[in-house]
Amino acid sequence: MNIADKLLNLIDQKQNPCIIGLDPMLEQIPEHLKKQTDNPFESVRDTIIEFNKLIIDAVNDIIPAIKLQIAFYEQYGSEGIKAFEETIKYAKQKNLIVIGDVKRNDIETTAKAYAQGYLGKVLLNDGTNIPSFDVDFVTVNPYLGSDGIKPFLEFLDKGIFILVKTSNPSSQELQNKITIEGNMICEIVAKYVEEIGMKFVGERGYSSIGAVVAGTYPEQTMKLRKIMKQNIFLVPGYGIQGGKSKDIVYCFNNDGYGAIISSSRDIIFAYNKEPYKSKYSSEKFYLASREATLNMKDDILNTLKTISFKKYIF
Amino acid sequence: MNIADKLLNLIDQKQNPCIIGLDPMLEQIPEHLKKQTDNPFESVRDTIIEFNKLIIDAVNDIIPAIKLQIAFYEQYGSEGIKAFEETIKYAKQKNLIVIGDVKRNDIETTAKAYAQGYLGKVLLNDGTNIPSFDVDFVTVNPYLGSDGIKPFLEFLDKGIFILVKTSNPSSQELQNKITIEGNMICEIVAKYVEEIGMKFVGERGYSSIGAVVAGTYPEQTMKLRKIMKQNIFLVPGYGIQGGKSKDIVYCFNNDGYGAIISSSRDIIFAYNKEPYKSKYSSEKFYLASREATLNMKDDILNTLKTISFKKYIF
Repeated sequence: MNIADKLLNLIDQKQNPCIIGLDPMLEQIPEHLKKQTDNPFESVRDTIIEFNKLIIDAVNDIIPAIKLQIAFYEQYGSEGIKAFEETIKYAKQKNLIVIGDVKRNDIETTAKAYAQGYLGKVLLNDGTNIPSFDVDFVTVNPYLGSDGIKPFLEFLDKGIFILVKTSNPSSQELQNKITIEGNMICEIVAKYVEEIGMKFVGERGYSSIGAVVAGTYPEQTMKLRKIMKQNIFLVPGYGIQGGKSKDIVYCFNNDGYGAIISSSRDIIFAYNKEPYKSKYSSEKFYLASREATLNMKDDILNTLKTISFKKYIF
Repeated sequence: MNIADKLLNLIDQKQNPCIIGLDPMLEQIPEHLKKQTDNPFESVRDTIIEFNKLIIDAVNDIIPAIKLQIAFYEQYGSEGIKAFEETIKYAKQKNLIVIGDVKRNDIETTAKAYAQGYLGKVLLNDGTNIPSFDVDFVTVNPYLGSDGIKPFLEFLDKGIFILVKTSNPSSQELQNKITIEGNMICEIVAKYVEEIGMKFVGERGYSSIGAVVAGTYPEQTMKLRKIMKQNIFLVPGYGIQGGKSKDIVYCFNNDGYGAIISSSRDIIFAYNKEPYKSKYSSEKFYLASREATLNMKDDILNTLKTISFKKYIF
């Protein structure tokens, strides 16, 4: 099945276009999970796995997908990557779509190695091929041009999100530059996403080639939405990066689909902040995360309803 | 010591600005190294480690640095990353500068996590911080702007290479776009590299902030060389990607410094191709790699000599 169809079906089933980013920043993980063994990297690995599993247990029935920002795992080397792998397996057992936020970018056989590792199968010593990370989507950086994207397109049951417009202030330094032909760099990328995406459109009208688009710049969002009609936007920055639902809703199409909104630290470390802090102990951090997830869903859905979408679905 | 100084000193000591890329593509690794254990990923890990160690043993006295393209390790998950870690340790024992070709790109705490993991120290469960990958340089992608670069600048004894102009044909799709102000996108990045690099210039006049610049486009190389006078170019694409020494020499400054030329598959899998194939058995693949390394060095140095560098050093 086309992975975009699968994602949209899960959004319908959960009645929720919001997803959670599992960014396990150790300094914010509750102390009671921080056991110490002889190997400090193994200790961190086990802490991250336990933390993630408790979050997934608490929210898997109310979200369609999770996003793993690999930096927070990878920084701990092979043991960190083991935590990444274990989290992927666990999330898939719970029928969540898994997005590897890896922002990889390379060319030729190198990009192919990334694509095989994350989406396809890798070659073994005995000549056979087996899946490795096996996530559903990865994020890809477009600075190297189409050579860096094409190797990811060979896995028809998987998908990618290409970075188009990121949420950070300095994203304008390159992404907003206007060319002599009158196009903004991020719009050039958007047109490319639209073009290659057409070949991978599922039964529900959306492509398995999506775009990372910040929700923080509404006017630009609307412009990009017009260029990429059939592409799903992965929208980071809700909450901590300043993304507000009144801006973010412009990432959706008039059919109420076309975007998944991601929040990471505001959700998984909700227990550290009001109104959750006085309500939940750090031992029950995952209950705070569940409540924060439901609040986010309500916020996005309510704001979507105030805007005159032609046939909004929820 | 400033890492650019350390690199230049090693180039002097080895009389060689050429480096080797350890891209362990399993399909090209000699069969006799492919042992099979119960765990297929562990088998691949051990194969890669053994292959890399034999290469490093064969060439460490004649090169200043090695570059590890992480994709070829990472595709095998945590066991692949273990091979990456073991190779880093081994290369450092042999006093080689280690460049992690990771092309990471992210913002805020995420970029900080990458920077800490590769160049600095990571937080542990007990509240202490220790080095993780601990490489000397990493490559960084600039599509997210300066927000994505700054977290890497906090480790004064380490360095980075920022992607400016890559060697692949489609690199022109974004990197060569000309803005309404008349600047090519890659030149905007080059100016940024030059500006931030100034703060990190060592005793020998070069910055620990370098640039990835393809050697395949001589005219463009000369233009970028003029913008980034104090920045070391990491030049991929010699050999297999079509880079020829007559083009690549324009990556150097008139003092004969300012570039390191990287070759990967042409060197490490030299045993598979003539003139090495008929000379070395696959069991002695590393001797073919040594000879190919020396040939590359001769080619680059001889071509450098034919060009009138003011005070060429070798």
